Amino acid sequence: MTFLDPWRYKYADRANALVASEIRALFATASNPDIISLAGGMPHLAGMPFAQMADVLRDVMIENGEEMWQYGSAQGNPELRKLILQITEIEGTTADPDNVVITSGSQQALDYITRIFINPGDVIIAEAPNYVGALGVFRSYQADVQNAQMDENGLIPEKLEVQLKKLDQIGKRVKFLYTVPNFHNPAGVTMSVERRKQVLDICKKYEILLVEDNPYGLLSFDGTIHPSIYSLDYDASLGYAPNVVYMGSFSKIIAPGFRVGWMIVPDGIKEKAVLSSESAILCPSNASQMTLIAYLKNFDWKEQIREFRSVYKERHAAMVDAINEYLPYCTYNDPTGGFYIWLKVPDDINTKSIQEECLNAGVSFVPGRGFYATGEGDEYMRLSFCFPTPEHIREGIKRLASVIDKKVK
Amino acid sequence: MTFLDPWRYKYADRANALVASEIRALFATASNPDIISLAGGMPHLAGMPFAQMADVLRDVMIENGEEMWQYGSAQGNPELRKLILQITEIEGTTADPDNVVITSGSQQALDYITRIFINPGDVIIAEAPNYVGALGVFRSYQADVQNAQMDENGLIPEKLEVQLKKLDQIGKRVKFLYTVPNFHNPAGVTMSVERRKQVLDICKKYEILLVEDNPYGLLSFDGTIHPSIYSLDYDASLGYAPNVVYMGSFSKIIAPGFRVGWMIVPDGIKEKAVLSSESAILCPSNASQMTLIAYLKNFDWKEQIREFRSVYKERHAAMVDAINEYLPYCTYNDPTGGFYIWLKVPDDINTKSIQEECLNAGVSFVPGRGFYATGEGDEYMRLSFCFPTPEHIREGIKRLASVIDKKVK
Repeated sequence: MTFLDPWRYKYADRANALVASEIRALFATASNPDIISLAGGMPHLAGMPFAQMADVLRDVMIENGEEMWQYGSAQGNPELRKLILQITEIEGTTADPDNVVITSGSQQALDYITRIFINPGDVIIAEAPNYVGALGVFRSYQADVQNAQMDENGLIPEKLEVQLKKLDQIGKRVKFLYTVPNFHNPAGVTMSVERRKQVLDICKKYEILLVEDNPYGLLSFDGTIHPSIYSLDYDASLGYAPNVVYMGSFSKIIAPGFRVGWMIVPDGIKEKAVLSSESAILCPSNASQMTLIAYLKNFDWKEQIREFRSVYKERHAAMVDAINEYLPYCTYNDPTGGFYIWLKVPDDINTKSIQEECLNAGVSFVPGRGFYATGEGDEYMRLSFCFPTPEHIREGIKRLASVIDKKVK
Repeated sequence: MTFLDPWRYKYADRANALVASEIRALFATASNPDIISLAGGMPHLAGMPFAQMADVLRDVMIENGEEMWQYGSAQGNPELRKLILQITEIEGTTADPDNVVITSGSQQALDYITRIFINPGDVIIAEAPNYVGALGVFRSYQADVQNAQMDENGLIPEKLEVQLKKLDQIGKRVKFLYTVPNFHNPAGVTMSVERRKQVLDICKKYEILLVEDNPYGLLSFDGTIHPSIYSLDYDASLGYAPNVVYMGSFSKIIAPGFRVGWMIVPDGIKEKAVLSSESAILCPSNASQMTLIAYLKNFDWKEQIREFRSVYKERHAAMVDAINEYLPYCTYNDPTGGFYIWLKVPDDINTKSIQEECLNAGVSFVPGRGFYATGEGDEYMRLSFCFPTPEHIREGIKRLASVIDKKVK
């Protein structure tokens, strides 16, 4: 391409950090019906009660249209903030509704917390591999992202403490630890309860904020609920957890199309988060918020979450079976919930290099390198079982094997 | 308040620039029925076809619920991008739909363009007084906002050129000029067509991007349409205006509750804007976008805009009449469209100082100082005629006069 952007010398330094992710590079293939996508993180929505919801929404718009179509508050609708706490209390996350801030998806909560805390060069500790959307935000604020190590029980407290000690010795300003404790994206692992306490204690000792991102917590396959790290830090006299920012989202337990997420934050940070909301978007959408209120009040959302669990459980089983059958030489940590399997291919195979061949064979995945700030991960790929049917998952893994087999044998 | 935020030493430098605006300080009074608000910028929505729209939306959700509730693209819905161009072409703003980026209100377009261009200390030139939401964003990215001078015909080209020459001489990096050319918020003035050409030429000469924010352009009282500055720079061979970023919004011509706005941008900036969207919110809301598509396709939106014009024309007339009757010693530039009158009180009165007394008298306004980056403006106030009825406007001005009269006489 010969196009030279005439404004390129005018951009801010942070704009150079805005680069397309490995996931975005696959967008063009997403609508190709010949390709089975094991790449995206789109939730299963086919079973949602669209028709019944359409009737409910019709009534809301007739009765409260003017409120629904008008500007709202930057912090978000007070009734929705209370309803959100009914959801989060399932895993022990309680708060004063005044400490809940509604965001445009939990992605925006990530944007706000990074905006509030990060000067260029400040350190964020984050599990490696890491959620690609978080890495993108952290990069765009020119953070120095340092990898925290995980094993099959999640983030390793002992290694975290060694790391913090070292960073302290060389005078690095660590602003927060970012963690996805449940059914990690992409690693699939869940942090043990014992480690949650240890990690929290280490953060408190080093006076580092703990940012807990929990989009999948209610989506264990067998209904197991893990207490949030937030719940271990909660102080009833304050009405919030003083050392934790908790992030949640409707995207996986209801639907992402409304772009509504939330953060639960200590008082001081709340003030900054509300001002960030005003600055970024004035206020979240009343129409979206009131639609979600109508859904939560008129439908059995707990039963819907149970249905989602059983759908994802079936799809996960289909993927695990297919991997065991077609890719027996690959290893993975078997998740107990969530959307993803983090597959390790044999060492001499580079998942980025085989991507095009796999697309030609009719299957897409996300190469591992996109999930690291530092360029490693080429022996991994992220496989999503959330959206394709069990049959498509099976066929997709078979196609994947048709390419990888040739490299191995 | 004795609360000391324990995280205060950890915030980024930019977070210190996140401060509550003069408008936000009035939020608490907005729901008080004893106070007539001449402060807010909420559009008039009472005449919108909520019931008919509820039926239309019901059908959309039944037929396309799954798409509506799912993730969308970071750039925004392609059909909506085309429909937006049907609206903007009324004032000559045409583009390749691929150069349109959907945002969560045009406030988010402001956030993106500032994010993309501004390093701390970089200069933005902006009309003074200025839209308070823009000032908030500019501050939050630590921009050096320099006042451009206006008169009754808008921004003054000769003064702009002198200013740019001076800034160039002292080595300041000017990144863009931000202007609201139509029915300026808060100043009420409209830039003449001749000046639009001159201002564009000056920006081209000094290689400065021109950011044109146009939420009110279609809302002149008599239906007069002013050509956008963008239209004067449009290059059909490119499909966009190479020196202008154009921002628009549904908030004033349909409704703000969906939080949908847009920016029309050159190719290089578009790439950065789409990546900003991914980083900030992943994607705009499909539910909101598809609702607006349904509205635009099923209702006579041009007739609706004509109705808005006549409502605002009547309210503006009520305010002007009341000011002339009750506050004859105050001066103002009479707007020909938009939402606001920028009232100058006698020099020895400070509008911030009389605010509480006015609230006690049952009327709110926004003190002028909030509209300046640099602390001046205490002899001005912004009065909104968009939301209150003519009767309330008249009573509100009367209450205002009951306070100001005592200071003058």
